[in-house]
Amino acid sequence: MTKKIAVLPGDGIGQEITEGTVDILHTFSSLFDRSMTFEYGLIGGHAIDETGDPLPEATVTLCQSSDAVLLGAVGGPKWDRNPSHLRPEKGLLGIRKALGLFANLRPVKAIPALLSSSTLKEEVVRDVDLLIVRELTGGLYFGEPSERRQVAGEDAVVDTLFYTRSEIERILRKGFELAQIRKKRVVSVDKANVLESSKLWREIAEEIAGDYPDVTLEHMLVDNAAMQLIRTPAQFDVVVTENLFGDILSDEASMLTGSLGMLPSASLSETGPGLFEPVHGSAPDIAGRNEANPMAMILSAAMMVRVSFGWEKEATLLEEAVFQTLKAGVCTKDIAAATNRAPVGTSDVIAEIKRQLQELA
Amino acid sequence: MTKKIAVLPGDGIGQEITEGTVDILHTFSSLFDRSMTFEYGLIGGHAIDETGDPLPEATVTLCQSSDAVLLGAVGGPKWDRNPSHLRPEKGLLGIRKALGLFANLRPVKAIPALLSSSTLKEEVVRDVDLLIVRELTGGLYFGEPSERRQVAGEDAVVDTLFYTRSEIERILRKGFELAQIRKKRVVSVDKANVLESSKLWREIAEEIAGDYPDVTLEHMLVDNAAMQLIRTPAQFDVVVTENLFGDILSDEASMLTGSLGMLPSASLSETGPGLFEPVHGSAPDIAGRNEANPMAMILSAAMMVRVSFGWEKEATLLEEAVFQTLKAGVCTKDIAAATNRAPVGTSDVIAEIKRQLQELA
Ligand SMILES: CC(C)[C@H](C(=O)O)[C@@H](O)C(=O)O
Ligand SMILES: CC(C)[C@H](C(=O)O)[C@@H](O)C(=O)O
Repeated sequence: MTKKIAVLPGDGIGQEITEGTVDILHTFSSLFDRSMTFEYGLIGGHAIDETGDPLPEATVTLCQSSDAVLLGAVGGPKWDRNPSHLRPEKGLLGIRKALGLFANLRPVKAIPALLSSSTLKEEVVRDVDLLIVRELTGGLYFGEPSERRQVAGEDAVVDTLFYTRSEIERILRKGFELAQIRKKRVVSVDKANVLESSKLWREIAEEIAGDYPDVTLEHMLVDNAAMQLIRTPAQFDVVVTENLFGDILSDEASMLTGSLGMLPSASLSETGPGLFEPVHGSAPDIAGRNEANPMAMILSAAMMVRVSFGWEKEATLLEEAVFQTLKAGVCTKDIAAATNRAPVGTSDVIAEIKRQLQELA
Repeated sequence: MTKKIAVLPGDGIGQEITEGTVDILHTFSSLFDRSMTFEYGLIGGHAIDETGDPLPEATVTLCQSSDAVLLGAVGGPKWDRNPSHLRPEKGLLGIRKALGLFANLRPVKAIPALLSSSTLKEEVVRDVDLLIVRELTGGLYFGEPSERRQVAGEDAVVDTLFYTRSEIERILRKGFELAQIRKKRVVSVDKANVLESSKLWREIAEEIAGDYPDVTLEHMLVDNAAMQLIRTPAQFDVVVTENLFGDILSDEASMLTGSLGMLPSASLSETGPGLFEPVHGSAPDIAGRNEANPMAMILSAAMMVRVSFGWEKEATLLEEAVFQTLKAGVCTKDIAAATNRAPVGTSDVIAEIKRQLQELA
């Protein structure tokens, strides 16, 4: 069956890495006889420029009628001074909410060829293989009220951290389920010594743990988790946490393996299409220069074909093609510097990954 | 003039490191002819056991009538299952609020003798010399409502991130003032692309920056800050941020120099007594065994005599005595392992610091 993919290149390097990734997916499609169609939509700064809206209704409709969404990156200095409803990231927050993408998955795994480029010692990061499962549609990001007020004659401001039991339960269950197909360990991160929301979070984690008898559950305070990720990152398997804690911890964790340009992510809903995007941003400083590393986005596409389409074997081969390319020393500037290679362009990396994929197929 | 110090040993190793620190302060007192009196108060688990309250009224009164407060640490497994109003950390949160300790200062500076014990590469942490200035009496820690509710027939929970303009302004000003006597760079950390509170925070930072023309101001999103602290920690001078972001980032930063047992902190109010405590916890697993590292608490006492009593020169000598002790290879287990030394007991470290102080005086 043909899979329909909504492609949202977004801003900055989002454009060129999306182009390369779709190019590879065409090769993938013919090599493995897997049928995919691609339809393009606007999001972020480009969408603001063309429609006055960071998330045009047409984009939402396109995504809703697709089997998966592939996103490049959004944002750039051009829109930094805009009022908040006209900021690129509103597009990102909007599509998360519109598609009900409650579970953000960010795997961080050591890549042998890149270990030396981490600022952490090689022996500390060598065995890192963790997955951050971040709640993505609740908490402080969407709670109401979120507003300025006058209090006792002066400006004051309030944001609201709000969760329902069912929102907490479904993300925790997602964490447990993912642990079952991994190393069977869940660390649930909260701030239960201060926040009421964390107390409920911890209670629910305890309640449902019994449904996953093969998985061990540990609770960790968020401040301690921020320490432990640096102290002994290899201790973690699945880390499950609420939206803002997940935002902070997953960016922290993205530094462990020394290769932000290699990290994919998936955002999943209960039954609708998932969204797949690289962890890195739109890097406006190098946009349009054929310098951007497309690997994180290609690995995101691999997650897409595995998770959303169930093409497990083919997904693994696509990942393998990326790693073989790296092993062959073909890489962009970001990685070349750290590994003593001569850098090549985005398009060269794409060409080599296609070649590797052809060889593996 | 005699300075009155409220001493709150608290729980676990809080007991023995406080004893050692007060011992050293007696030596300090006679060596430098600086008069101090010490009065003891209960806080945390011990206070719960003896009075049924983690922060007895008598302790608050004692602190309020003192020139400074010296705290060991609170908490332990014995009280972990207590209802939240009977938890040791309520004592800590309570004393912060009662004394109006709005500014938590956590310096993190590379110590040459300990660099190799960091999980980060030596060249990355060698030049680290940063100060985290955390707002300590507002935000999600104290905002109302903070409660469970029924929403559409199910449990829900809410916490509130609340700040007034004056609360934000005074902590930002504290950050700028501290930068003026350091390297003149402030990084203000927020999440202005999502939170209303962060937008006001950023506005106020911009407004008051003009009052500190010698200081440069940079804004950084909290997720990026969590990355940058690992990527290039030496880029930071003063980092100023709200309560929960500060909790997470300061614990993350505490791992940089590989020596949690060396990190002091100060919590300051507008005009009343400040509170000084080590960054580390009560370490119940090693309590009472003469194994705890007292150095972080002694360095906290040095901050106390400098910041609260104005004894600048003497404070520097006390710090010097600690670093000389380290240099002489006299240290507890936590540091010995990482630096290939034979460990000695808490009391041996105290004795050596006293000896070094006598030599320096
Ligand atoms: C751009 C921003 C709103 C977003 C977030 O905070 O969720 C980003 O940091 C992310 O992690 O995807
Ligand atoms: C014990 C806890 C309430 C406290 C906090 O979160 O402030 C601690 O983590 C700290 O940083 O002093």
